[in-house]
Amino acid sequence: MDVAVIGANGGIGREVVRRLADAGHDPIGVVRDDTQFEAVRERGGEPRLGDLEGEFARALEGADAVVFTAGAGGDTGWDKTLLVDLWGARRSIEACVEQGIDRFVMISSYRAGEPLAAPDAIRPYLVAKRCADDALRSSPLDATILRPTALTDDAETGQISTAFGPEDEDGDEIPRADVAQTVVACLDTEATIGETIRLFGGDTPIEQAINPDE
Amino acid sequence: MDVAVIGANGGIGREVVRRLADAGHDPIGVVRDDTQFEAVRERGGEPRLGDLEGEFARALEGADAVVFTAGAGGDTGWDKTLLVDLWGARRSIEACVEQGIDRFVMISSYRAGEPLAAPDAIRPYLVAKRCADDALRSSPLDATILRPTALTDDAETGQISTAFGPEDEDGDEIPRADVAQTVVACLDTEATIGETIRLFGGDTPIEQAINPDE
Repeated sequence: MDVAVIGANGGIGREVVRRLADAGHDPIGVVRDDTQFEAVRERGGEPRLGDLEGEFARALEGADAVVFTAGAGGDTGWDKTLLVDLWGARRSIEACVEQGIDRFVMISSYRAGEPLAAPDAIRPYLVAKRCADDALRSSPLDATILRPTALTDDAETGQISTAFGPEDEDGDEIPRADVAQTVVACLDTEATIGETIRLFGGDTPIEQAINPDE
Repeated sequence: MDVAVIGANGGIGREVVRRLADAGHDPIGVVRDDTQFEAVRERGGEPRLGDLEGEFARALEGADAVVFTAGAGGDTGWDKTLLVDLWGARRSIEACVEQGIDRFVMISSYRAGEPLAAPDAIRPYLVAKRCADDALRSSPLDATILRPTALTDDAETGQISTAFGPEDEDGDEIPRADVAQTVVACLDTEATIGETIRLFGGDTPIEQAINPDE
């Protein structure tokens, strides 16, 4: 599959591009700046320019699936959370609908299910993520929403724990590498379409964890 | 009708409470602080406490309709835009659905139809308003969305100009008092259910402007 990764230079995005290439897919790494092109190529991706606040939709052309892993990040203001995490996600969903790209995997966040139950400092972020998730859910796309708990840069373990549903425990933190591998596994697993899956560190092999009925 | 006005102490909210009372309705003024109670009573409203970031849903009990005119305002951060303008609106919609309050009038903003076409400084605000509008549209409520252009504190004229649709001109500015009178007129006009109406200063009587087919 040709898979466009939006936010290909982010902590999860980098890992997703690399693992898609390793799995035999053709990743398209969408980045904001062409100084990031070489790094995308080194991970096995085809780099393309796309600005979620500007010219963007053409970066998705020809893709069979899109992974949204862009985020304004903690060093910017909440205005960027509105413009990138929320509106950028909505523009991505809309571009997929317009271009007939059916498959969409959203990197959301734990606690997006209930923003006001979270600590004050992250509530506005969770509102943005939740509203982006809801826009995806109410779209006609084949969507999988992943809500990882606190992230680490630890090495991949290949094992996770999942929860389907609205529970509110945070669980064990999870390496970005395992989140990325879960994205790849979801693209290969039709049973994850329509699901919202929370991701924790754990001890269940990824393929089994995301498809418990198999 | 018992009409709960969320944001009853705001520039438009104050005018809505007063005009609802003048029109023979029973306005409920939802405010965050009981020091605002007396002012609500003076305008003919029943004051109730409601915090869009906290305890809130009970303030709507018994209402037949809700007018959402709350906003974090320009003196706060974008985090409050996310928490109040967007999430507070979504909580209000949800509370109406849960309590069987069918009628909802949203005070949105001109240019919410196309946030990125607006000047930089207001784009994040428009993203929040647009997402709130879309949440209302996709709800089962009988909704009217009003998108006034730039607001003034001028006296009521009783006349406005409207546009139904996605056009993008800003039009003439409009007194808050005329926006408030339009809210009252919409509650009495079934034809406005399901409509998104942009409001400008103009020279058409309000009742006629919001119901052009009559």
